Amino acid sequence: MDLVSLQDVRGAADSVAGRVVRTPLLPCGWDDRLWVKPESLQPVGSFKLRGATHAVARLDPSERDRGVVTHSSGNHGQALAWAAAAAGVPCTVVIPEGAPAVKVEAIRRLGAEVLLVPPARRLAEAERVAAETGAALIPPYDDRRIIAGQGTVGLEIVADLPDVATVLVPVGGGGLASGVATAVKSLRPEAVVLGVEPELAADARESLTTGALARWGPELTYRTAADGLRTNLSDLTLAHLRDRLDGILTVTEEEIMAALARLVRRTRLVVEPSGAVATAAALFRAADLRPGPAVAVISGGNIDPAVLTAALAP
Amino acid sequence: MDLVSLQDVRGAADSVAGRVVRTPLLPCGWDDRLWVKPESLQPVGSFKLRGATHAVARLDPSERDRGVVTHSSGNHGQALAWAAAAAGVPCTVVIPEGAPAVKVEAIRRLGAEVLLVPPARRLAEAERVAAETGAALIPPYDDRRIIAGQGTVGLEIVADLPDVATVLVPVGGGGLASGVATAVKSLRPEAVVLGVEPELAADARESLTTGALARWGPELTYRTAADGLRTNLSDLTLAHLRDRLDGILTVTEEEIMAALARLVRRTRLVVEPSGAVATAAALFRAADLRPGPAVAVISGGNIDPAVLTAALAP
Repeated sequence: MDLVSLQDVRGAADSVAGRVVRTPLLPCGWDDRLWVKPESLQPVGSFKLRGATHAVARLDPSERDRGVVTHSSGNHGQALAWAAAAAGVPCTVVIPEGAPAVKVEAIRRLGAEVLLVPPARRLAEAERVAAETGAALIPPYDDRRIIAGQGTVGLEIVADLPDVATVLVPVGGGGLASGVATAVKSLRPEAVVLGVEPELAADARESLTTGALARWGPELTYRTAADGLRTNLSDLTLAHLRDRLDGILTVTEEEIMAALARLVRRTRLVVEPSGAVATAAALFRAADLRPGPAVAVISGGNIDPAVLTAALAP
Repeated sequence: MDLVSLQDVRGAADSVAGRVVRTPLLPCGWDDRLWVKPESLQPVGSFKLRGATHAVARLDPSERDRGVVTHSSGNHGQALAWAAAAAGVPCTVVIPEGAPAVKVEAIRRLGAEVLLVPPARRLAEAERVAAETGAALIPPYDDRRIIAGQGTVGLEIVADLPDVATVLVPVGGGGLASGVATAVKSLRPEAVVLGVEPELAADARESLTTGALARWGPELTYRTAADGLRTNLSDLTLAHLRDRLDGILTVTEEEIMAALARLVRRTRLVVEPSGAVATAAALFRAADLRPGPAVAVISGGNIDPAVLTAALAP
């Protein structure tokens, strides 16, 4: 399988320059050796803007006219809507009926057309739109352009902290972890890149252990509050992680919420549960890190204020 | 009076490079023309780290050995403790009895010596320490080094957004506003720099209107939740603001808390009430801004979780 290269990630860095926030590394506030990379500060609140921006930038002129379509109601849907609007490209987002109204509204506000369909028909509907309108289907992670775009997070980490020893990165569909591992291991092979996922959605650990793509259904993965990490890997992201990831750690729900509260109180960042898992690993799996400076990637900050309030309760 | 120059601010930029976070400009998330400068992301949670770092960097070798002292229990105390620890310089912070234990602990954790004294004796005690130990007294704003250090915020704004039309900056003691106005008006005279303060602590507006230093006592200024902005100007900061500020706006308590909640929900930043006043002016005094891109400086993010929770209540 043709994997994404460092050169692909560097190409993506050119695409996203000036179009996404160049997030700084922030000292976490409680451990001199731990830094966080706050992708929660991107305009749509997650790293997804990087891949979406690169995918849109790579459209050729005739594709631009026909627009883009995706079927994610989550952070990728918002990111693609933003990136398309910024580039003047039409965008359709297929959303399952029953999705929170606030998410639907956010995507509409960004100028995208929203199609509400029964959950089971999401992918089929997106494919129908692509076939009928010629729009390019931009999936959330199973795509080399998306992986290359997310990998720019890794380029920036090594640029800002050249002696980084450990990079901790959340694993959902695996696009972010694939891209970050590609960049970091190419530039600094002696650093370890560790994926982190909730114990309750540890399909990637199983996939990496057995070597075959594990499929955990919603009856399992919906047990975690980390809604961005309920997705399974794809063959493409599994191939990247097998080749480039040094290991995978899991964290409990209690550890995720403790890390989230710590990031709010001590690092002054609004973080969603998925965004807190890498920091949870730094806090509660410290023995698994390589000695030296560590970076935890904060993947996103789209949290319901009620969940945030509950996490802060004494 | 000898005012701080652009060259002084550029000197401070050399001092703070690599020692404070180079904060990015972030799109606010609800208005295409409004950016925020999140100084809440500095390690101690406020811009105060800039002035403190520059003041410590300017000590000569014999002064370094004798250390530094200040009498602020707020963000400046924490900032000086951090900057001194980073430079290996002894630090004493005089704190009024009755200050929140969490603040005292935070300063102690940074390695500073804490002296608890009756509130009225704060300044005298700091002066006594300076006289007896030879430590350099580093005041929170009435100091040219501090003003130059805070001015680096303005340099970065113009570097990142060269066509900025309006800069909104909170005014407490006036150190931040003096420094930012110095940098921005020197580099881009056509931009307007507006101070913002709570209506309930509008001493700076009165000082600028009458031309004489207004002194509002705690019985007035303690009415605002913006605890970082209860301080009066000094002769030095008033002289800077008279010369360089284009105007001053005031905002109500309700407007401050609405802006704070907006920044948490839409910009994903943890902000303290003082840190939200400039954004409140952008939201509720839009007619007073110059047309074009605007930047609101978020001065800090040290908020009691209970206050944050209350601000997020539906």
